[in-house]
Amino acid sequence: MADNDRKRAPLKTRRPPVGASPGTLIADPAARRSELRLTLISPEKFKTIDNASIDELNAHCEKWPVVWLDCTGLANIQLIEEIGRIFNLHPLALEDVVNTGQRPKVDFFEDHAFVAMRMIDVTAHRYEQIAVFFGRNFVVTFQEREGDPFDPVRKRIAAAMPNRLRSRGADYLAYALIDAIVDSYFPPIEAASEVVDGIEDQMLNTPHKHQMRQLHELRRDANVLKGVLWPMRDALATLIRNDVPFVTAETKIFFNDTLDHSLRLIELVENQRDMLTGLIEMHLSLTQARTNDVISYLTIVSVIFMPLTFLVGVWGMNFEPESSPWNMPELKTYYGYPAALLFMLVVAVGLVAFFKWKKWL
Amino acid sequence: MADNDRKRAPLKTRRPPVGASPGTLIADPAARRSELRLTLISPEKFKTIDNASIDELNAHCEKWPVVWLDCTGLANIQLIEEIGRIFNLHPLALEDVVNTGQRPKVDFFEDHAFVAMRMIDVTAHRYEQIAVFFGRNFVVTFQEREGDPFDPVRKRIAAAMPNRLRSRGADYLAYALIDAIVDSYFPPIEAASEVVDGIEDQMLNTPHKHQMRQLHELRRDANVLKGVLWPMRDALATLIRNDVPFVTAETKIFFNDTLDHSLRLIELVENQRDMLTGLIEMHLSLTQARTNDVISYLTIVSVIFMPLTFLVGVWGMNFEPESSPWNMPELKTYYGYPAALLFMLVVAVGLVAFFKWKKWL
Amino acid sequence: MADNDRKRAPLKTRRPPVGASPGTLIADPAARRSELRLTLISPEKFKTIDNASIDELNAHCEKWPVVWLDCTGLANIQLIEEIGRIFNLHPLALEDVVNTGQRPKVDFFEDHAFVAMRMIDVTAHRYEQIAVFFGRNFVVTFQEREGDPFDPVRKRIAAAMPNRLRSRGADYLAYALIDAIVDSYFPPIEAASEVVDGIEDQMLNTPHKHQMRQLHELRRDANVLKGVLWPMRDALATLIRNDVPFVTAETKIFFNDTLDHSLRLIELVENQRDMLTGLIEMHLSLTQARTNDVISYLTIVSVIFMPLTFLVGVWGMNFEPESSPWNMPELKTYYGYPAALLFMLVVAVGLVAFFKWKKWL
Amino acid sequence: MADNDRKRAPLKTRRPPVGASPGTLIADPAARRSELRLTLISPEKFKTIDNASIDELNAHCEKWPVVWLDCTGLANIQLIEEIGRIFNLHPLALEDVVNTGQRPKVDFFEDHAFVAMRMIDVTAHRYEQIAVFFGRNFVVTFQEREGDPFDPVRKRIAAAMPNRLRSRGADYLAYALIDAIVDSYFPPIEAASEVVDGIEDQMLNTPHKHQMRQLHELRRDANVLKGVLWPMRDALATLIRNDVPFVTAETKIFFNDTLDHSLRLIELVENQRDMLTGLIEMHLSLTQARTNDVISYLTIVSVIFMPLTFLVGVWGMNFEPESSPWNMPELKTYYGYPAALLFMLVVAVGLVAFFKWKKWL
Amino acid sequence: MADNDRKRAPLKTRRPPVGASPGTLIADPAARRSELRLTLISPEKFKTIDNASIDELNAHCEKWPVVWLDCTGLANIQLIEEIGRIFNLHPLALEDVVNTGQRPKVDFFEDHAFVAMRMIDVTAHRYEQIAVFFGRNFVVTFQEREGDPFDPVRKRIAAAMPNRLRSRGADYLAYALIDAIVDSYFPPIEAASEVVDGIEDQMLNTPHKHQMRQLHELRRDANVLKGVLWPMRDALATLIRNDVPFVTAETKIFFNDTLDHSLRLIELVENQRDMLTGLIEMHLSLTQARTNDVISYLTIVSVIFMPLTFLVGVWGMNFEPESSPWNMPELKTYYGYPAALLFMLVVAVGLVAFFKWKKWL
Repeated sequence: MADNDRKRAPLKTRRPPVGASPGTLIADPAARRSELRLTLISPEKFKTIDNASIDELNAHCEKWPVVWLDCTGLANIQLIEEIGRIFNLHPLALEDVVNTGQRPKVDFFEDHAFVAMRMIDVTAHRYEQIAVFFGRNFVVTFQEREGDPFDPVRKRIAAAMPNRLRSRGADYLAYALIDAIVDSYFPPIEAASEVVDGIEDQMLNTPHKHQMRQLHELRRDANVLKGVLWPMRDALATLIRNDVPFVTAETKIFFNDTLDHSLRLIELVENQRDMLTGLIEMHLSLTQARTNDVISYLTIVSVIFMPLTFLVGVWGMNFEPESSPWNMPELKTYYGYPAALLFMLVVAVGLVAFFKWKKWL
Repeated sequence: MADNDRKRAPLKTRRPPVGASPGTLIADPAARRSELRLTLISPEKFKTIDNASIDELNAHCEKWPVVWLDCTGLANIQLIEEIGRIFNLHPLALEDVVNTGQRPKVDFFEDHAFVAMRMIDVTAHRYEQIAVFFGRNFVVTFQEREGDPFDPVRKRIAAAMPNRLRSRGADYLAYALIDAIVDSYFPPIEAASEVVDGIEDQMLNTPHKHQMRQLHELRRDANVLKGVLWPMRDALATLIRNDVPFVTAETKIFFNDTLDHSLRLIELVENQRDMLTGLIEMHLSLTQARTNDVISYLTIVSVIFMPLTFLVGVWGMNFEPESSPWNMPELKTYYGYPAALLFMLVVAVGLVAFFKWKKWL
Repeated sequence: MADNDRKRAPLKTRRPPVGASPGTLIADPAARRSELRLTLISPEKFKTIDNASIDELNAHCEKWPVVWLDCTGLANIQLIEEIGRIFNLHPLALEDVVNTGQRPKVDFFEDHAFVAMRMIDVTAHRYEQIAVFFGRNFVVTFQEREGDPFDPVRKRIAAAMPNRLRSRGADYLAYALIDAIVDSYFPPIEAASEVVDGIEDQMLNTPHKHQMRQLHELRRDANVLKGVLWPMRDALATLIRNDVPFVTAETKIFFNDTLDHSLRLIELVENQRDMLTGLIEMHLSLTQARTNDVISYLTIVSVIFMPLTFLVGVWGMNFEPESSPWNMPELKTYYGYPAALLFMLVVAVGLVAFFKWKKWL
Repeated sequence: MADNDRKRAPLKTRRPPVGASPGTLIADPAARRSELRLTLISPEKFKTIDNASIDELNAHCEKWPVVWLDCTGLANIQLIEEIGRIFNLHPLALEDVVNTGQRPKVDFFEDHAFVAMRMIDVTAHRYEQIAVFFGRNFVVTFQEREGDPFDPVRKRIAAAMPNRLRSRGADYLAYALIDAIVDSYFPPIEAASEVVDGIEDQMLNTPHKHQMRQLHELRRDANVLKGVLWPMRDALATLIRNDVPFVTAETKIFFNDTLDHSLRLIELVENQRDMLTGLIEMHLSLTQARTNDVISYLTIVSVIFMPLTFLVGVWGMNFEPESSPWNMPELKTYYGYPAALLFMLVVAVGLVAFFKWKKWL
Repeated sequence: MADNDRKRAPLKTRRPPVGASPGTLIADPAARRSELRLTLISPEKFKTIDNASIDELNAHCEKWPVVWLDCTGLANIQLIEEIGRIFNLHPLALEDVVNTGQRPKVDFFEDHAFVAMRMIDVTAHRYEQIAVFFGRNFVVTFQEREGDPFDPVRKRIAAAMPNRLRSRGADYLAYALIDAIVDSYFPPIEAASEVVDGIEDQMLNTPHKHQMRQLHELRRDANVLKGVLWPMRDALATLIRNDVPFVTAETKIFFNDTLDHSLRLIELVENQRDMLTGLIEMHLSLTQARTNDVISYLTIVSVIFMPLTFLVGVWGMNFEPESSPWNMPELKTYYGYPAALLFMLVVAVGLVAFFKWKKWL
């Protein structure tokens, strides 16, 4: 989670040229080729058409109780506009589909809702936008590229009866998809928690500069994540609060559960941020303490040698003993030299004892 | 409260695999064997059945005004599902029972409420989830393992008449249980307060590095605790605010009292956090001040020896007195050496006096 | 305000054993003997009975328009329960009376209100709980020990007519008592402000370590005070907001005034905290600056002696002038020694000048 | 704005003795002699009476559509009480008039509103209270001393027709006065901004200790100012929100404009505080950086002389060349001395180069 | 974005003299000459008149479904008053037009709305006010100088049919203009983000003092920007919330989109601020670490030379070997000198090894 590429532009919003007419779809040059996957669902049976065409969509659309169209890749503007026409999607919402990097949000239109979500792409260290439209009998999802968190939902659709995903309406399917997106945040957040725990262990043993950088980057990641999760929570709360005919009260209980998960995610991330801030502070105080220790220690060593060097200097002076009996008579005494060495030893040991007593060592 | 195991994962949430069908119960491999304890309560009498079976539950359930089923251990999924069927508990709530580590919360369903609470397990340094369901005539509690804070409630049920716990309905029993959970936070928080006071005393006398670490850990504990108590307070407020037929106005007055306790707990924890933050700052400033003192002191010692060493160097120079009367004539004077020593003493004493006057010593 | 005893447990809450039946009164072993003082008030006259008994209370209670019972000391549980029965006080509220250290709050019951307040006991450096119950025709106050802020109110009751305290109802008397409690916070807060100003003056002249400790303690006091004043404000706002028959609209205008005072108190304390935080930061920067000054100064002194010591070392080398004309010929020159001393002086003065120019000195 | 007198007690509240009967007016011993100035306004004409007496007030009061009584100096309690009786002002509000230093606020009474405002007295570096009462046909203002911001309003009253101040009612006059008070905050805030800019410029060139103190004081001033402006904003919002018969909807549009100004003031002050906090941090980092530079520099100088001093020490040793050909033969070589000096030069230059390469110099 | 001129007064409000009559227009002496550009719009056709006169305005005003008058330069007060009269604009709003630097806001009047916005002038590093009035059939915009973000809107008006800007009413045109203003914030914010990324890269390699200053300035810029964007968001929310006849529900959906963009902008700026705060902290810790490294390193070098210098001092002492066999006999040994040198080498290497083992090097 501390990769350079992701950290640079984790939340870059694509936007149309300033002043462009709202609702104008302009493809991102980097967008992938669009591919459609149509899932037709009724309580009794279901059918999946990969690489579906608009004609197939038109053909099946009205005949099934619930239709789920999943569009991967946003390069084909005409196709997206055609889908918008078929399901009567609002142009402003479609613009948000193409201009990826929107804040997570919910917009209600006359007969459908538009939910913009974000997904962590763990392998590529990026956030990707997933747009979910749903109305009375359809769900349309748009994603930037392959690799969505929807596979478990697909499997549950295919599971044997009784099958809530098939027996309940489009709103329940939308809930299942949104819930899958929200839940996909748990693994990376828990992975990050383990990284943090690892750094903490390491740090308490041997504080290093690179840990500081890692902690800073993790905190930034957590900040970005918080910035994604909060509007997600707001969007889910809006979904539950508003009364629209195409969301049943029963499904709202389920959305409430997803809201709970998003709150739990926020709590985890906030907790992680608090921990990281605490660790950064502690790292600072640990390295500071370490430097202080080293410097105190070394200063003490210097101070011990100071008087010794002075003493040897004294006995290195050239006052001439011949000129006067007062001039350095100790130089000529029988035990002068060993006595001098002993005296210096006593001074050194005394200083060490003094510093130990003062608890400076 | 500063134990390593607990600090690592105090709030780990167990969650189903990402994308699993909501309401699917999957047992935690680490869960304990489930055991039921059935308490049957009427104003006149009461009966407790340990290790109750589902059949006993079915047999007694309808015949008593209030039934309290306490399930310890969450390994037996079938049993939990069976209980859910008997009391008509919502599948999403049951999922939250099995996936422990939920945020404290209250969910209202048609004829019962679900209250997820957390309890500090002081001996194991962990938080455990306690789930409380209650409806018009039943209370069902689920706990992760033995050792609940419910014993005083059991004793009060068994107490002689007049006995509010027996004469009032299931909501009052639920209140008594939830109140016991909330009150169980007081002893560990007060214990932590005493630990903090102890560290403070110690710190003001002899600041040590390990205190810093302890303070950081205590602050983290307090952060985690705050993260548990706030949603608890919200849950209690929700309980009081909502009008549901199975919670009487009278019981709400009691729940209000519990809400008060939770506010008091939050206040205590916030206070503790403020104190810890203050102590961490003060620890930093104390150790910084101490290092500064040591370094100033030592630097001054160095500075005192500097000119002395210079002076002995001067008189150690080898300018030949023979070549010129200007060349170090002092070396040959009668009192040269003692005068030199005296001069150096004067310099040293003068410097010490100067530094004392400057208040640097 | 920086006394050790108070700082330890300024806000210790007494609470019943975890899980005890709510509404059970258990006396604090440290509680004082209960004493009753009965004040009987009518617009025309008033009467005070010190050391009143329950019988006297029963005898007078119904006959006067307003009865104020002031109970000092909480040791006599039976007495308190008897009072509760006479005035029909709620058991939960009575529990809060006995378990002192409650958050300031207001609870409304059918025919009376319960107001828990806190008072600073300046002489003992502690907070004490004062509980005020009031209904249509009575006010009951409970205090932990003698020494309440109610004396001015007693004097105003005894004052000559026209006398609002006697002519208005029990709610106005309750207002007067609560207002007296709130106003009793002004003198200690203003005293603390003066202490802070004193420390500031001192600090700007001579920063000392003990000031830091004082500032920390004062900030902690302010934090505690804030934690008392905020719920007080909330309680007063609740009193004004709720519509109960035993509080007249006219009295609410007066309670609004008390609310204003509490806001003013909060403002004063917040201001004090901001100032203290600013002073702590400034103290840190002042001592840091001072240490930096000392160290810079000393380092410069060292640096000045460095080259001098090197030079005297050079001329103290033993290269033999006899072996070569290149070997230290300066040692034999006529003005060698004075020239050397002069040169060293020039170096020293040059360095001082250089450091002055660099503004390092 | 950094004057000592003001900084000490910028917001001292005068309050009655604790427990005094509310509504009792007690003059501040320091209050000035009261003087009345009566302005009588009708759409066609207006009249100003300086040093008006109560009799004049009684005589004119009922005859003019709008009466503005401006009372300067609060020493004459009887006069103030008389004014209160004439205009039927609430006793609690009058108490707030006399006890200056109230939080800015609005209180609504039956037929009039009471607005407590604060004004910066720039020359005396103090805040003064201005109380504004207004009802259907009167405005009464109370100020602590001469020198109010009302002169432009007086001029506008005297201006030629069409004259909104004369043709509109008392509420518009009250608006004009309150707006003048609010606008009087702009010049001192802008002046403080310029002081901050000046310090910033200075600081970036030569950081000095006294700047730190100035910044701290300016931040404290800004804190105090914020504490005055926020309740001012709240008071204005209350004025607009409440529906009282004596404030017309048209005047509310104008009050809304004043609210806008107060928001702008808060924004300016908040901005200034953010800037000051940033500057304080930057000052710390600049001085820290400066000390670090000096110490690094000096330490490097020391380190360069270390090996040189060692070397001269080596060649100053007294090993006797006579005893052995191994004993310091270099002392006798022909170019020994110059070679030694050269070698030391090489060492010094090498070290300087090394430190330059390491970017430590 | 770190230019000196802008940083000084990015948000200077022009305001009328304190106490001036509200609604009085007084031209800013620095204001530019006013120029009018009239755009007349109907679904079928449109017409643009540059340098329009008041007469042309009067002539065309009533005949077209939508009239857009764009006034550049605010020096001509009479002209502005004339425009106010023609479109019946409120005098207080017109005052805000002339007194530039208002907080972004929306005011609703009887038949029109006034929207005050701010625009970054990237080339001049300043914020400029753009005022937008709109009613049922007109939009009037006032700008301080040429160079507005409206050019794309002009192009869209001129575009071929179907043309929403021509077929919808004045509210849609107002939306398009306001949306263009809001969107014009994206490029400079993104540019600043890139600057921040650049500094971060640089900083991690070679931390320099000037980066600190840059980071501080960027953070201040972000603070100012936040102070502009928040009221902008509030203004947009007010626009959507209020029900006025001249804003259709359809246009509100579009305004909601603009609100979304403003939220996104705030998010970007908040993110940038968090990043900057993190970078400032990290810069501090990096430079601190660097200084600590240098000082530790140098201190260690000193400490290594300490004992060596002591040793050479010892052997430089002048104890006379002649006086006693104990007096420095090593000076006369055959291998004395090389042994001494070797011993000193051993000491030095030992110390280096010791410090390496201690991880101080």
